[in-house]
Amino acid sequence: MEQAFEPKDSNWRARVREIFGGQGFMELLGVTLDDVEPGHVRMSVPFRPELTQQNGFFHGGLMATLVDNSGGVAAGTLMAAGQDVLMTEFKINALRPGAGDRLSVVTNLVRAGRTLAVTRMDVFAHAGDSKKLCAVGQGTYMYVPRAGDR
Amino acid sequence: MEQAFEPKDSNWRARVREIFGGQGFMELLGVTLDDVEPGHVRMSVPFRPELTQQNGFFHGGLMATLVDNSGGVAAGTLMAAGQDVLMTEFKINALRPGAGDRLSVVTNLVRAGRTLAVTRMDVFAHAGDSKKLCAVGQGTYMYVPRAGDR
Amino acid sequence: MEQAFEPKDSNWRARVREIFGGQGFMELLGVTLDDVEPGHVRMSVPFRPELTQQNGFFHGGLMATLVDNSGGVAAGTLMAAGQDVLMTEFKINALRPGAGDRLSVVTNLVRAGRTLAVTRMDVFAHAGDSKKLCAVGQGTYMYVPRAGDR
Amino acid sequence: MEQAFEPKDSNWRARVREIFGGQGFMELLGVTLDDVEPGHVRMSVPFRPELTQQNGFFHGGLMATLVDNSGGVAAGTLMAAGQDVLMTEFKINALRPGAGDRLSVVTNLVRAGRTLAVTRMDVFAHAGDSKKLCAVGQGTYMYVPRAGDR
Repeated sequence: MEQAFEPKDSNWRARVREIFGGQGFMELLGVTLDDVEPGHVRMSVPFRPELTQQNGFFHGGLMATLVDNSGGVAAGTLMAAGQDVLMTEFKINALRPGAGDRLSVVTNLVRAGRTLAVTRMDVFAHAGDSKKLCAVGQGTYMYVPRAGDR
Repeated sequence: MEQAFEPKDSNWRARVREIFGGQGFMELLGVTLDDVEPGHVRMSVPFRPELTQQNGFFHGGLMATLVDNSGGVAAGTLMAAGQDVLMTEFKINALRPGAGDRLSVVTNLVRAGRTLAVTRMDVFAHAGDSKKLCAVGQGTYMYVPRAGDR
Repeated sequence: MEQAFEPKDSNWRARVREIFGGQGFMELLGVTLDDVEPGHVRMSVPFRPELTQQNGFFHGGLMATLVDNSGGVAAGTLMAAGQDVLMTEFKINALRPGAGDRLSVVTNLVRAGRTLAVTRMDVFAHAGDSKKLCAVGQGTYMYVPRAGDR
Repeated sequence: MEQAFEPKDSNWRARVREIFGGQGFMELLGVTLDDVEPGHVRMSVPFRPELTQQNGFFHGGLMATLVDNSGGVAAGTLMAAGQDVLMTEFKINALRPGAGDRLSVVTNLVRAGRTLAVTRMDVFAHAGDSKKLCAVGQGTYMYVPRAGDR
């Protein structure tokens, strides 16, 4: 992180949890929002066979979903009141198979401007107490007026 | 597409369907492999509230999963016998909200080398008979020896 | 291209040529703007040893520069009056060595919104009359108030 | 960096300098290789009007070139004897205008496998003793047999 980030909305924490909680997709996948601070997010998801690719590892699409969603929430910690945050783009590089009993992502805001925010994401595969970096991401998120307010 | 693609494994179609069918994640999401030709793939998934983000649209992570998986299958149509295909990296740009009753992806191989393949992906949101391009992707996939053969 | 693009500024052609002509970097590299229509751009650069990487091929950084700049100009064809266009992000995949006597890029706008535009780029290496696709790109550009007007 | 990186070729330093020195493009741009350790690289380039975009700032294509080339050199520090390294793909996000008297890039290897290496890049614009992060990158590089040895 190049800077400490100052939230613009004193209600940011409730707002970010509301966004995360309103995503049916996170519930389907079993993803939990484990930590959120201004410009910083951790999420994780426990292993299930329903989350795998052809070799029984966590699916790359699931890794990408953690990358995407954690970037949106990290950007969202700097939203102004009345704003929502949407994914503009991101990329992911797979480094190792997602082998383990849990997948987590640690995401940091790199810069938040008035319109766009840029984040970097690290995805880890956990086996008990050990973890391995299995993917890295970088993405852009856009602040937009909240749906009801547009 | 810059060229017609020649499969290297006469059994490619069964092999690609086996890979797709072996992914628990596709079954959880309800994604179907609708068309597959050498270097070309179409997949889709019908709307469910379990697939949404905070505004009730298809989640960006689901779009990314379609991008990722269709890229892998498109690359997979050019696998040699005894090979598997793994995602190396991809990026996605969101263009419009994923609003509609069905999400689909149309993916074409750009180039398949000995080790790596590059693909481009178009994601569409369908409302009845009309469709809108809602995301585009570009990614790299790697040919590796099949797990049991490594 | 998913649509025909309508310029917003009747003066777009002069404006886009002014932006391109104001870039010292293009002059240093010898890049020419060969064709520009709404949402469509072609640029090229002839071979010189000063543009090469360690094996004597066109340098990847030069390919990336063509990708970047053609994306900006393609997005720029849809600028409103009083606007400038800046690169937000892009990615490039190398497909083949940039071997030949000329490098060109053909770039198409995918979508232009009010704030952001997304483009796709194809880079070709030319040897006489034949050409080979040697890189593909995808990127995002942002419309901002022109510098003097900010 | 997730790990300390062990060079595979005892001659890596000379080899990496040879690759950098063999790139006519770096000489044209005035880029210098300021520091190179296993998995770590710094390069920089002083301001000249020939390196600018339309507003007089460092051109995005130049930032991309620093991102690309530093990634290749960082990956190259882990080459085996007889290998060369080629760019597979990278992406760059612009954060701020490249305003200043010098542009530099600090690049770290994230992971080096047998075939592919992944790196992350930070681009800084320097004005005297102060510097600002103006772009970030992430990319993939491929180890291949050296040209004469293929």
